[in-house]
Amino acid sequence: MADTIVVPEAPVADADAGRALREVGRSMPRLESTAKVDGSVEYIHNLRLPGMLYGRIHRSSIAHGRIVRIDASAALACDGVHAVITADDVATIVPNPYYGPAFHDQPILALGKVRHVGEPVAVVLATDPHVAEEAADLVSVEYEPFDAVFDEVAAAAPGAPIIHDELKPAGMFTDLEHVAGRRGTNVALDARLRTGDIEKGFAQADQVFEHTFRTGKVIHATFEPMVSVAEPAGPGGLTIHTASQSPSFVRSEIARLLGWPENRVRVRTAFLGGGFGAKLYIKLEAMAAVCALLVRKPVRIALTMDEQFYTITKHGATVLIRTGVTNDGRITARQVETYWNGGAYADIGPRVTQKSGFTAAGPYDIEHVALDNYAVYTNDPPAGALRGFGISQLVWAYERQADIIARALGIDPLEFRRRNALRNGRKHATGTVVYGMEVEAVLDRLAEKMEWHRPFDRGSGTIRRGRGIAIGVKACVSPTTSTAAVHVYGDGSCAVHTSTVDMGQASDTTLAQIAAEVLGLPTPDVRIVHPDTDVTPYDMATLGSRSTFHMGNAVRRAAEDVRAQLLRIAAGALGVDMGDLECRDGAVLSRAGAKLTFREVMLARFAMQAGTIVGVGSYTPSYTKPDPRTGYSPNITPFWMLGGAGAEVEVDCETGRVTVTKLVNVADVGRAINPASVERQLCPACSICRAS
Amino acid sequence: MADTIVVPEAPVADADAGRALREVGRSMPRLESTAKVDGSVEYIHNLRLPGMLYGRIHRSSIAHGRIVRIDASAALACDGVHAVITADDVATIVPNPYYGPAFHDQPILALGKVRHVGEPVAVVLATDPHVAEEAADLVSVEYEPFDAVFDEVAAAAPGAPIIHDELKPAGMFTDLEHVAGRRGTNVALDARLRTGDIEKGFAQADQVFEHTFRTGKVIHATFEPMVSVAEPAGPGGLTIHTASQSPSFVRSEIARLLGWPENRVRVRTAFLGGGFGAKLYIKLEAMAAVCALLVRKPVRIALTMDEQFYTITKHGATVLIRTGVTNDGRITARQVETYWNGGAYADIGPRVTQKSGFTAAGPYDIEHVALDNYAVYTNDPPAGALRGFGISQLVWAYERQADIIARALGIDPLEFRRRNALRNGRKHATGTVVYGMEVEAVLDRLAEKMEWHRPFDRGSGTIRRGRGIAIGVKACVSPTTSTAAVHVYGDGSCAVHTSTVDMGQASDTTLAQIAAEVLGLPTPDVRIVHPDTDVTPYDMATLGSRSTFHMGNAVRRAAEDVRAQLLRIAAGALGVDMGDLECRDGAVLSRAGAKLTFREVMLARFAMQAGTIVGVGSYTPSYTKPDPRTGYSPNITPFWMLGGAGAEVEVDCETGRVTVTKLVNVADVGRAINPASVERQLCPACSICRAS
Repeated sequence: MADTIVVPEAPVADADAGRALREVGRSMPRLESTAKVDGSVEYIHNLRLPGMLYGRIHRSSIAHGRIVRIDASAALACDGVHAVITADDVATIVPNPYYGPAFHDQPILALGKVRHVGEPVAVVLATDPHVAEEAADLVSVEYEPFDAVFDEVAAAAPGAPIIHDELKPAGMFTDLEHVAGRRGTNVALDARLRTGDIEKGFAQADQVFEHTFRTGKVIHATFEPMVSVAEPAGPGGLTIHTASQSPSFVRSEIARLLGWPENRVRVRTAFLGGGFGAKLYIKLEAMAAVCALLVRKPVRIALTMDEQFYTITKHGATVLIRTGVTNDGRITARQVETYWNGGAYADIGPRVTQKSGFTAAGPYDIEHVALDNYAVYTNDPPAGALRGFGISQLVWAYERQADIIARALGIDPLEFRRRNALRNGRKHATGTVVYGMEVEAVLDRLAEKMEWHRPFDRGSGTIRRGRGIAIGVKACVSPTTSTAAVHVYGDGSCAVHTSTVDMGQASDTTLAQIAAEVLGLPTPDVRIVHPDTDVTPYDMATLGSRSTFHMGNAVRRAAEDVRAQLLRIAAGALGVDMGDLECRDGAVLSRAGAKLTFREVMLARFAMQAGTIVGVGSYTPSYTKPDPRTGYSPNITPFWMLGGAGAEVEVDCETGRVTVTKLVNVADVGRAINPASVERQLCPACSICRAS
Repeated sequence: MADTIVVPEAPVADADAGRALREVGRSMPRLESTAKVDGSVEYIHNLRLPGMLYGRIHRSSIAHGRIVRIDASAALACDGVHAVITADDVATIVPNPYYGPAFHDQPILALGKVRHVGEPVAVVLATDPHVAEEAADLVSVEYEPFDAVFDEVAAAAPGAPIIHDELKPAGMFTDLEHVAGRRGTNVALDARLRTGDIEKGFAQADQVFEHTFRTGKVIHATFEPMVSVAEPAGPGGLTIHTASQSPSFVRSEIARLLGWPENRVRVRTAFLGGGFGAKLYIKLEAMAAVCALLVRKPVRIALTMDEQFYTITKHGATVLIRTGVTNDGRITARQVETYWNGGAYADIGPRVTQKSGFTAAGPYDIEHVALDNYAVYTNDPPAGALRGFGISQLVWAYERQADIIARALGIDPLEFRRRNALRNGRKHATGTVVYGMEVEAVLDRLAEKMEWHRPFDRGSGTIRRGRGIAIGVKACVSPTTSTAAVHVYGDGSCAVHTSTVDMGQASDTTLAQIAAEVLGLPTPDVRIVHPDTDVTPYDMATLGSRSTFHMGNAVRRAAEDVRAQLLRIAAGALGVDMGDLECRDGAVLSRAGAKLTFREVMLARFAMQAGTIVGVGSYTPSYTKPDPRTGYSPNITPFWMLGGAGAEVEVDCETGRVTVTKLVNVADVGRAINPASVERQLCPACSICRAS
């Protein structure tokens, strides 16, 4: 398998091969396993602060309309209700209350109009959560309803109800001149890719297949629902404790909303009880922050399971896919038009549209490609980057069509994929040369695990069986930055400062392994300090399968920085060359056999005193922004991700009961830092197979 | 005045003299003034954690004796009492429960015997602080009393009751072979200094004066009494929130007691409501930590005002001082024998004994000196480094004698001091050459402020007046280390990570000024991140007037490190030499007039992404350990501190009423970072004069 994750620099089969300790590449239990079992790990959900108020959201009952009047009197009359906050109150401290990672379109509380059922209109603050819940029901809102639109294709068509008066792109979309300020459209962004000559490609084809695929919205409700606790910190400061995958972004966005410098906003997270992309960017943080600043008390806003369905979903999409093939099964052209149902607010939807959009031709080597992706506003709840950043919607469409085409051509579906596979060294439709993506190996492994070439019993009578395979390609979010620090204390023990959020994916253990490998320590001796913007350096976010690669490299560099400092001190103390020294077993060892424990090294540096040595490492892969007209970029992703799955399914044609009798996951994960952890991620609930 | 504090490197009158912004040397209000007035600053005293128990200490009613039996049944029967912790419980998790910065002699709770009235014997933990208080009174302890000794001279004499079976030096005293394991003595340490030939010196004298001075114990009860809150953090971790001047020491000592690596113990502080040396090293932290680990809940232990008198005091001392002088007022020899009443536990007393002890000859140039300092255990509460690290006891003695001698010789007291003053370039009795200590200038200023040479009205009838002056010298605690980090965030705002504790001395503002000066920012734009051993790098402690010098230099270096990184990025972005760039007004400016704000510099480094740049700085002055036989060291302190005071006093001889009619403070402070803050420190409650 490909070496997409290169940590540390030396290959496995190097001169140290005989070495006993080897942290990277070794399966090990998570550092926090015991604490998770005995209940002592921190979750923001469990946080209670003295004097804290509980916030409960009153939500819109209609999908689209003007807010005529909000009557909070009945809610305010409840015993224990401290305040009811609406957009008018928000305006007293945040004049321009629109936020979002891609577009500044989402108000902290509905302002003038509502755009989806369940949109937050008011927050009731009470000393007791049950009082808050009851009072939130008593808020009464009068609406003037507008026509609503829920279908992404209809919403993109002329004459549809318009959801936002004007488009307000932000962040990386700020410079898209053809978007900013556009009025009278629900299409937030159209992202296109053109390579070759699509008409020529279709002309070369013996047959052209055209299908439309539609997927519904999905929400991955996490065990720990969304929760944020905000508290004023002095007259000009604010601390937000939040179950977030992106503390650094929360800080900068809250600072922007308040008009404060970032150094007055502190954002901290703990373990997350699941994230899956639902806890990205801002969710409840701005609301909790404003409430806390207005009442000068800590405010906790936590969602119920069902409220999460109003907050963020995975995009539904309509995928029109047209593929030209020769009779011997070569794809000559592919045209894909995708409408992404972004719901009422952009969230990161335009980025999903753009970034997954350019992979819509699949892991195939196609000369003529034309892809059009539309990020469309509708009156559904907002959609974001859940579970795969838009990839699975496309994989389902292009792989479903692959099977249809293969059957029509009379070619084995696996063989059809193999004939068109995008191989290393070839150019992807974006123009980026593919490397480290072993499509052939994934297909081979799928075939082997599925026993693809053995006769398959398709059943008879009422019990029938089927099987299928699919492969998909994903790029990493780029360009992004991770920074880490490693502290070595006076007694030689150490800690890693990282803003990567451990949300169950075992990143604490993975990052500790990388630091341990560099420093020659056992992994459990490395302490991970959790994200806190006052403490841990910047990280873009924990998303898009980027952390092990980006933060892993940042931690490696920080550990190498600290190791160099330890070796320099030890070289001075021992009177030898740094090059003669290495870190192993919590000590610095020389070729001649001299040894200084890390504690002794620290004593050599700081005399009888303790001290701290700090190493810092940062990692930003190179990136070339794609041409907005063609989508061309010679360097669009630092690495490619490729995975495949196979399933055997049994259907009882009488009862309609479907049973999955076999499920196989194959992923080209590169070099696994913690193989056991990778296996658990790929097959979390399945004991049928083992990931390879 | 002398330039003992050199921050930044360039002198004031340099090429930048015309520059508008100049943060160092400018008087400014404290950064936290508003927050202190509106009550929003954090004090550990105000911290309440969910599920927290309140600990109340049951204290010994006798000064010395064996504990025969502890009966906690009545306390345990109280409603709301969760547990009563004694030394037996402590032993289950800390087999060797003795702690201390100088000697490991103080048990977490009295073990087998008690050594002073008020010694903690048991801790009652209850859900309510009043229940805890009542129940603590109900703990019943049976003692077998021993003879006690309270006088430091008597305690040092043969035959005195012995307070500790065996001496257990630690830390910097570990290698004192003549101390470790010594039995049958209350003298924890004898620190001596010999220079010249004391007998020869007395032989050269026309007269020899011999006096004994005694000072009582003193406690500076702070507005915020001592408080520590400990909470378990996962199965193998512990967090301590504590009103401490030395978070780094608390961490290493708690880790040592528990047998844990330091990276599993987190210690954080907030603003202190006064420190004055009372909140140094460990006070309540070990007790709170052990209680929290035993019951697996957060535990808060806070003292009442009177309980602080049992916890730490400033040493009482007996000073025998013998001075030989010629008839024209030259001191030829000085012999000082000081008995320091260290109380029942060493705390930092042996270091006070040693470190202030070597200055017992005063700021005078004396050829023949013999100083003997005895750190003596008694059955008083422990004594530590309060208010001047032992200096004021000695100053009172040698300056009182100076007046007596001057009067006997018929020499003006100011003139007597001038004739013997230790001048720059001369060797102090330790062997360290004196620099940056302008004794002459201090005397001149004292004379001027006191109008010393004008006729002084001594009063008549029942109202009589007197006046006097005194000068004193102090060395800095050495060798010690401070480390700081400066973070610059994506929007160009920044924060200083420092473990210096702001306890009212305005260190936050001072350190922010230093960082602001280096980075060309207004001081209020710099955010100070408060001590937290998970966050802020090591600092020895906030004590002994060391912070501005040590941490100031560490912050300067960290800011210079970050500035160099900013300039390097800007040089690349602008295509100019780093040498052509400077930081000013929150931006990088080139000689040619180009300008990049810090935000733009960060964008140049991290593309469209935010990021963090981290600078690190550490400072440890050089030091030569004194010869234990002679006290000789060519390098005993990184700088000398010199101060003087003058007072005019009126006495009503009928009523005995004393009125201070004038008080003058003169200190050689070097270059003041924040002159207004220095003035407030020197004359906190006095508007009679202005410090110079």
